[in-house]
Amino acid sequence: MVNNKAVVFKKWAIDYPVIGEHFEYVTDREVTHELKEGEILTRNLYVSLDAYLRAKMRSHEETNLFGRFNLDQVIINHAIGEVIASKNPNIPVGEIVYSYLGWEEYSVIPAGQYVEIIKNARESKLPLSARIGALGMPGFTAYGGLLRYGKPKAGETIYISAASGAVGQLVGQMAKALGLRVVGSAGSDEKIAYLLNVLKFDAAFNYKNGDILASLKTAAPEGIHIYFDNVGGRHLEAALEWMLPRGRVVLCGQIGDVNTQNPPGVRNLFICVPKEISILGFFVMKFEQEYKAQFEKDVTEWLLSGKIVYKEDVTEGLENAPSAFLGMLQGKNFGKATVKIADL
Amino acid sequence: MVNNKAVVFKKWAIDYPVIGEHFEYVTDREVTHELKEGEILTRNLYVSLDAYLRAKMRSHEETNLFGRFNLDQVIINHAIGEVIASKNPNIPVGEIVYSYLGWEEYSVIPAGQYVEIIKNARESKLPLSARIGALGMPGFTAYGGLLRYGKPKAGETIYISAASGAVGQLVGQMAKALGLRVVGSAGSDEKIAYLLNVLKFDAAFNYKNGDILASLKTAAPEGIHIYFDNVGGRHLEAALEWMLPRGRVVLCGQIGDVNTQNPPGVRNLFICVPKEISILGFFVMKFEQEYKAQFEKDVTEWLLSGKIVYKEDVTEGLENAPSAFLGMLQGKNFGKATVKIADL
Repeated sequence: MVNNKAVVFKKWAIDYPVIGEHFEYVTDREVTHELKEGEILTRNLYVSLDAYLRAKMRSHEETNLFGRFNLDQVIINHAIGEVIASKNPNIPVGEIVYSYLGWEEYSVIPAGQYVEIIKNARESKLPLSARIGALGMPGFTAYGGLLRYGKPKAGETIYISAASGAVGQLVGQMAKALGLRVVGSAGSDEKIAYLLNVLKFDAAFNYKNGDILASLKTAAPEGIHIYFDNVGGRHLEAALEWMLPRGRVVLCGQIGDVNTQNPPGVRNLFICVPKEISILGFFVMKFEQEYKAQFEKDVTEWLLSGKIVYKEDVTEGLENAPSAFLGMLQGKNFGKATVKIADL
Repeated sequence: MVNNKAVVFKKWAIDYPVIGEHFEYVTDREVTHELKEGEILTRNLYVSLDAYLRAKMRSHEETNLFGRFNLDQVIINHAIGEVIASKNPNIPVGEIVYSYLGWEEYSVIPAGQYVEIIKNARESKLPLSARIGALGMPGFTAYGGLLRYGKPKAGETIYISAASGAVGQLVGQMAKALGLRVVGSAGSDEKIAYLLNVLKFDAAFNYKNGDILASLKTAAPEGIHIYFDNVGGRHLEAALEWMLPRGRVVLCGQIGDVNTQNPPGVRNLFICVPKEISILGFFVMKFEQEYKAQFEKDVTEWLLSGKIVYKEDVTEGLENAPSAFLGMLQGKNFGKATVKIADL
């Protein structure tokens, strides 16, 4: 056994988790180098910080569906690692892999767990972290959510909340490419400037400056056809209020509502009846695989050609993962949040 | 001009409308018998009491979509009348017609308004009121909502709120015929007995006796695949909580939420993400016509053969229409609410 630093889950959290109480960075875990048949040992490079992890920290009934963390478990998520020992002949030492790995220096991947070799990882022009960002779960969420659930048509208007986040920034750029009018909201003027100037959104507003509905009406005077919801709560209410008949709400995460026991509730669902609005919840873990090959081909091409850009917010050092995760829950990240654990 | 009794809309209502303040029965309206080209004069027989009329009494923004009533306007809705004068050669005197008519003794139907002759109305074995019930808007709502939005499959479980009401009783019987397990809720033990004993629901509960979610869990221990929502609010929350992955919510009216300025709000929409639930609002006025012919054929056949039964709650006398309407908003009707204005 050798020493292993890690971030450990300690206690169910109703409101925002507190470092030290609900989860914390520790330096006294251990990892074995004696692998069993089929196991792999990785030295971990990047882990993803994703909002759905928050739900896994709740003991509420619905979190069964996400799969709750166990108490005293190392937090695990989409991650990139280097294989440093292997008893799996398909995954030799030296390969760079994508899998579910702990927020820890070293992970033993059990036999049978999904592991994907990132081909030409050392030579690629794309950052290693792309596989947990634009080419990973957030990218797939954006691509599938927009195309399959949003059913966008050229000329329509889409509104995206958390628009500079891991998913929102891609949804916006893809929607632009498809000929939609794109409106986004975010929580700082710096993010708004980025949406307008770099990502070329048609309109964007800081939701912290004034009433969301009023801002939305100004940004999208003709109404909205699609709302890509990353937030829930008051954003969703405003979007329903300003949605055009037969509009679609793509529900991809309601980060606001998962950090409180008594979220405010959406009070105007009634409006979905006369407007014939569809609200479509989806979760990419269970996404049908039919879109996946096309997704990887398209997004790789777009990234390499510069047709879309993807902003990452990389925190250096595993010891900073807990505060980076909390920051992401509160919208402090600017771009897709990841933690870099080690250099390749 | 001759005297015409009528129910008149007087004032926008936020909470439950009050008779005398927001709408009232009056005996001093007038109607002319001097028709212009294309006009028809009807002696009115039945008018329908429907929940969506409540929304037309609100000045809130969304009611634009239903078409607000004007102040001092006679309330109009789906109705049956006898043609007693006509300057429309297609609709001769003596015919029984379905159209939008006032809550009044006599109506002048303007040229160009949709009017449908009810064929063999005097000889039919079906009640005259069927055209505003099982064969009218409520029936079409049930049929289209279940088949098109609910996408029911044999062996699935459906939960229906307001299950003995105008729409719910049909949804339940149709779902039974399609091989679903059918669970309903209503607000009195008499209604529950009817659902179980006459309509042969598999389970039913009085939502006034205890917690809705607990009752639903008992009635549908394996969870629900479809929720046909006629109520909104706490019923919708409970249904989302107990819904199986990929479940469908058919939103057909949220009668509870339209009678208050601050409905409680639905607090667990977040759960639609991991469960991949779709919430589908629809409104039959705008229903595609592709289903209509098949609907009329099917339901006529089912009613005549006794395969489905349809309970109507007929209030006698136009003067009782306001209180009957209020009663329906509060769930006091038992079956589809109509008012009989006159005998044929």
